Amino acid sequence: MTGSTAATFTADDYGARMERAARTAAEAGLAGLLVAPGPDLVWLTGYTPPAVTERLTLLVLAAGQDPVLVVPALEAPDAHRAAGAAALTLRDWTDGKDPYAATAALLDASGRFGISDNAWALHLLALQQALPGSSYASLTEALPMLRAVKDAAELDLMAAAGAAADATFEEIRNVPFAGRRESDVAADLDRLLRRHGHEQVDFTIVASGPNGANPHHEAGDRVIARGDMIVLDFGGLRDGYGSDTSRTVHVGEPTDEERRVHDIVREAQEAGFRAVRPGAACQDVDRAARRVIADAGYGEHFIHRTGHGIGVTTHEPPYMIEGEGGPLVPGMCFSVEPGIYLPGRFGVRIEDIVTVTEDGGRRLNTTTRELVIVE
Amino acid sequence: MTGSTAATFTADDYGARMERAARTAAEAGLAGLLVAPGPDLVWLTGYTPPAVTERLTLLVLAAGQDPVLVVPALEAPDAHRAAGAAALTLRDWTDGKDPYAATAALLDASGRFGISDNAWALHLLALQQALPGSSYASLTEALPMLRAVKDAAELDLMAAAGAAADATFEEIRNVPFAGRRESDVAADLDRLLRRHGHEQVDFTIVASGPNGANPHHEAGDRVIARGDMIVLDFGGLRDGYGSDTSRTVHVGEPTDEERRVHDIVREAQEAGFRAVRPGAACQDVDRAARRVIADAGYGEHFIHRTGHGIGVTTHEPPYMIEGEGGPLVPGMCFSVEPGIYLPGRFGVRIEDIVTVTEDGGRRLNTTTRELVIVE
Repeated sequence: MTGSTAATFTADDYGARMERAARTAAEAGLAGLLVAPGPDLVWLTGYTPPAVTERLTLLVLAAGQDPVLVVPALEAPDAHRAAGAAALTLRDWTDGKDPYAATAALLDASGRFGISDNAWALHLLALQQALPGSSYASLTEALPMLRAVKDAAELDLMAAAGAAADATFEEIRNVPFAGRRESDVAADLDRLLRRHGHEQVDFTIVASGPNGANPHHEAGDRVIARGDMIVLDFGGLRDGYGSDTSRTVHVGEPTDEERRVHDIVREAQEAGFRAVRPGAACQDVDRAARRVIADAGYGEHFIHRTGHGIGVTTHEPPYMIEGEGGPLVPGMCFSVEPGIYLPGRFGVRIEDIVTVTEDGGRRLNTTTRELVIVE
Repeated sequence: MTGSTAATFTADDYGARMERAARTAAEAGLAGLLVAPGPDLVWLTGYTPPAVTERLTLLVLAAGQDPVLVVPALEAPDAHRAAGAAALTLRDWTDGKDPYAATAALLDASGRFGISDNAWALHLLALQQALPGSSYASLTEALPMLRAVKDAAELDLMAAAGAAADATFEEIRNVPFAGRRESDVAADLDRLLRRHGHEQVDFTIVASGPNGANPHHEAGDRVIARGDMIVLDFGGLRDGYGSDTSRTVHVGEPTDEERRVHDIVREAQEAGFRAVRPGAACQDVDRAARRVIADAGYGEHFIHRTGHGIGVTTHEPPYMIEGEGGPLVPGMCFSVEPGIYLPGRFGVRIEDIVTVTEDGGRRLNTTTRELVIVE
């Protein structure tokens, strides 16, 4: 779930976003957008339903029409209180009625629509059945950059979230590591992120020793020991906007090999960052980081893409990966996070959120990228 | 998200569920089932991915074939550790590869498939594009009763979850209400549910005075006062299985009208419960409860269905509502929860989870349904 940004944006702001989204959709040849609960809906309306269930909640946007939010009658009072409610029309439906027929009546029966990636198959199939002449494309396919370019107010929130994550790192590097479980350090990260203003913590990865070789290891019972490399990767939402940073620390003095691998990842991260500028392709960032690691002989151990977009969710387009030829645009925010993973031994990952500026990139995470020694 | 039931069920149990699901699908004329992360996947395999993202995780079940779980390479180590992993084949895919082509290769290109309700539109659209001759139906439409009938071990877990919710009610009725915020009482409910073994709390509704007239009001800043009716509705997952119970309490002595409305709802709940028996239709339960409320003149104020199924999630088929003609079967578990909502004034709801037995129904919540006076 995504947090609320109600405190920050007004109905006018949401109205402007919905109008722009509908216009962008029309320019892309779409008859409209169908927006499901989740990051798209919270970004466009400020509304998060009390729970995501089988009951249909769907925002219908079409150029030249007023936005309509279809909601279960039970949840209409909640929807009325959303920050963006004044900029749309609520259309509620009661248990036992057919919400798809009511929604279909709002749509061009032979139109092509963009639909939120995370809309439920249940709802999409019912709309396809109600309007056999209609067709659909996921927003990632149809309008991948809908939420990608952040405005000034959003960039301020992204920067504040990044600063809060950095403050968390400055504190966590001073807690004791050796002799404690990964899950204990993860609990510290959770507490610190919240203390620094996060209302939602999405991940607190503490991957020590051989666990570091699994990029998605979270935090387990393993007791951290002297001599461990530890990947820390943490983030969540602060005032509705995301943080996500990784640093790799070492308990006591590292070996030469550990230092060398860390240096390579640091150089790869630097190369990825330096590739960020308006007009460069997303894949250029991936290529730049990957080349450093490949040239050092560790190419087969960099087993994920270099980065992902971030905004009202911690994982969204654009993706920094081979094949993504789309251009970087000022205001985009994404991670640059190369890593090297040596099975059974250790892993290293270094990650900053970077935003595209008029003439390059700006890091929203600025803690040291040198190997930090912890106790 | 759903909790883990890893401690309770073995790979053999999950293997048997997958085999039965594939067979049931074939009998329903389906070429197979496509199961997304969420309750269906946890019920069939015990696996919950570390996060639900745009990366495809999908279980493919087809009669006569071994189950295949398509997972992102990054998450394969987690999937390997799932309780049901030994009963299936993992097929992992790496960032940049096309997981839909790999999945399509497992499917009958002209088959009809059941797909989890909550599968993402992103994934469904990609499969529809990869296999233009295929067709899809949501599991709620195609096999709504897939998880509905609980076996003996599941019923034990449902009963334990219900008992934990009841223990929570016995404690909450003795906490102070007057002068505290709804959100304070909700925090008590959360703490008590966890103390009684819940690993996940899904809702802690405390709807006092006029807030009680909104069936989905959660808990807010309103300070509870003497003379308030308060709807309490709380539940979550305990050992991976759901609880959900509602009681309406009153701060100090109720008025005659408040007592009368509460009596009507109690009689409606009793009538709904008495309608539960094998072979009755789901809608019979709704009709029985609704008739009591309508006969008392409050029909327009009972604005939701009478109940919903419950299992590894707190909201699933079968639904107790007009139009649902399917038969009740021993082992099904669902709520019976009529209510009356008087806008601007107060609401009353009484809810038990009921399981169908060989000759009737058995309540899994057994706290008093008389109006409880709190302080």
